[in-house]
Amino acid sequence: MSSLKKFREFREHMNARILKEGHKGIQRFFALDAQAYTDGVLPAKTKELMGLAASMVLRCDDCIAYHMIQCKGEGCTKAEFFECFNVALVVGGSIVIPHLRRAVALLDELEGAPDLSKA
Amino acid sequence: MSSLKKFREFREHMNARILKEGHKGIQRFFALDAQAYTDGVLPAKTKELMGLAASMVLRCDDCIAYHMIQCKGEGCTKAEFFECFNVALVVGGSIVIPHLRRAVALLDELEGAPDLSKA
Amino acid sequence: MSSLKKFREFREHMNARILKEGHKGIQRFFALDAQAYTDGVLPAKTKELMGLAASMVLRCDDCIAYHMIQCKGEGCTKAEFFECFNVALVVGGSIVIPHLRRAVALLDELEGAPDLSKA
Amino acid sequence: MSSLKKFREFREHMNARILKEGHKGIQRFFALDAQAYTDGVLPAKTKELMGLAASMVLRCDDCIAYHMIQCKGEGCTKAEFFECFNVALVVGGSIVIPHLRRAVALLDELEGAPDLSKA
Amino acid sequence: MSSLKKFREFREHMNARILKEGHKGIQRFFALDAQAYTDGVLPAKTKELMGLAASMVLRCDDCIAYHMIQCKGEGCTKAEFFECFNVALVVGGSIVIPHLRRAVALLDELEGAPDLSKA
Amino acid sequence: MSSLKKFREFREHMNARILKEGHKGIQRFFALDAQAYTDGVLPAKTKELMGLAASMVLRCDDCIAYHMIQCKGEGCTKAEFFECFNVALVVGGSIVIPHLRRAVALLDELEGAPDLSKA
Repeated sequence: MSSLKKFREFREHMNARILKEGHKGIQRFFALDAQAYTDGVLPAKTKELMGLAASMVLRCDDCIAYHMIQCKGEGCTKAEFFECFNVALVVGGSIVIPHLRRAVALLDELEGAPDLSKA
Repeated sequence: MSSLKKFREFREHMNARILKEGHKGIQRFFALDAQAYTDGVLPAKTKELMGLAASMVLRCDDCIAYHMIQCKGEGCTKAEFFECFNVALVVGGSIVIPHLRRAVALLDELEGAPDLSKA
Repeated sequence: MSSLKKFREFREHMNARILKEGHKGIQRFFALDAQAYTDGVLPAKTKELMGLAASMVLRCDDCIAYHMIQCKGEGCTKAEFFECFNVALVVGGSIVIPHLRRAVALLDELEGAPDLSKA
Repeated sequence: MSSLKKFREFREHMNARILKEGHKGIQRFFALDAQAYTDGVLPAKTKELMGLAASMVLRCDDCIAYHMIQCKGEGCTKAEFFECFNVALVVGGSIVIPHLRRAVALLDELEGAPDLSKA
Repeated sequence: MSSLKKFREFREHMNARILKEGHKGIQRFFALDAQAYTDGVLPAKTKELMGLAASMVLRCDDCIAYHMIQCKGEGCTKAEFFECFNVALVVGGSIVIPHLRRAVALLDELEGAPDLSKA
Repeated sequence: MSSLKKFREFREHMNARILKEGHKGIQRFFALDAQAYTDGVLPAKTKELMGLAASMVLRCDDCIAYHMIQCKGEGCTKAEFFECFNVALVVGGSIVIPHLRRAVALLDELEGAPDLSKA
């Protein structure tokens, strides 16, 4: 099973588990989170790219994976991903590089290349 | 072997390894760390909850696991854990969510539910 | 005019300014933020102490000031503040110390001592 | 003198001072930083918005101010700024709010409203 | 009064205030902090440079100022400061630049140049 | 296969993959990163120790592993590593401890002791 499939299954399983608990504050936070990336005066694609850049400089692999999947869904090309990665690398510094390695491995997986993200 | 058991074994093994090295500064830091959570004018439970909230916003899974075990030992209920998670989520933002997923999986493991934290 | 008074005036003025803009997501976030600290299975005082510890390890002076004012309103004593500060210092390290200095200066201001926070 | 004018003067003065020192690595980093935001497969406006979102979640007031000025130059409207602020607030949490207050005060200054950012 | 003088006066005044409060954990942390930078198998100068680099990537102006004063006392030259700044800039990214500007202004103040750090 | 071998293989494989993509900004950043640690007025060993301390307080396991390998290559002894770890622990606080555990396990692996880092 690919790392991408495992990530998505755990994410969906646990999100459902958390929402089922019934804590109103947490449920509303999850709703706000989803709404923040919908089309507005800025298109969803731009918002997902902002979410991806923010996730990279904060160095959260799961957040990076999630926003990459969303960006891919919004039509981001490989060249667009690399320009976003470059902004995040310059803002966040070399400490971002380990996440960049995993992000590029995921990008290749997303584009049907052999899965390199297991290592 | 559960993820909880592995975490505790590695933690205890390496803490003993580190203390055995004999570096006075590190030994004293470990002592200060342990003393910070003992009963004082604030009860240990409140201090462990502060430690848990701080660990969540700093996004350290091992620190979260450790303070959850301690909170459980101080009698924290599931509802109390979720109120603490909610404060951490609001303070720290959606970047906390991947850690929340793993924390809720650990909570279920701590409460005897099937272990979901391996994914 | 004291630093505390200036902080509160700017905070209230700008919060009103932001909410007036009418962005639904931001308005809802502000509501979630307020609700996270109300009495529940954990008392408001414990939640404010968690918010204070989280703010100190994230090193945000304005957040520290806000939660100190709230903690004071919930009846926190000086000894309780110092136990919270100690947890934050151990979790967050010496990088927290500059914020601890300003927090203690604010605590003295909150308790009616001469204002040391201007320097 | 407005806070915006002071920020820009100190920034330009010190950047010149740093580059004049002649350290090749630092000079090249400054060049890379400038190039990261130029038009490519993604337009400069999208890159500046990514830089702004990243700066907000990393909570750096000077970086926020710089990217707001650049976004303004790329034609960002008030509604676009607020959608970017909302993404940053959801990703980064309430710890972003003090920076949001100063960002909105700066936005009003940038748009010719009375300067609120001095408080 | 220079910014350097104000920083040192507030730091010394508040450190004394904090230690006088008598919290054993905080007193011991302050002692550990001081001991970490004394000569050992690594010289104090190397330790202060590590403290300075760590403070820059964590983006704490007061910590940067403190370690720069200590580095100066250990004989660091301007060229050595800039090599340390460069490592911190590469590791931490452009988000470090506002702190680099203030650090270079402080360096010029420390070396007797006109004080630029007031802006 | 040891954790150290896996880390190095994935790192080298993905760095080559990233550079091959041909993004000029990212290629130049990687070059700047390598140059920052070469001998200058400060020796490479001191720069690698600064990089290690910075990586520990930023809590990046891969960056810690990389700089430990480099420090070892520059002749760092176990006692020097522990003094560096102590500075990072004091600056960064107990949140650094999980990374310290993995760093000491890696140190033992680097020195030929049984590999403890798999847990």
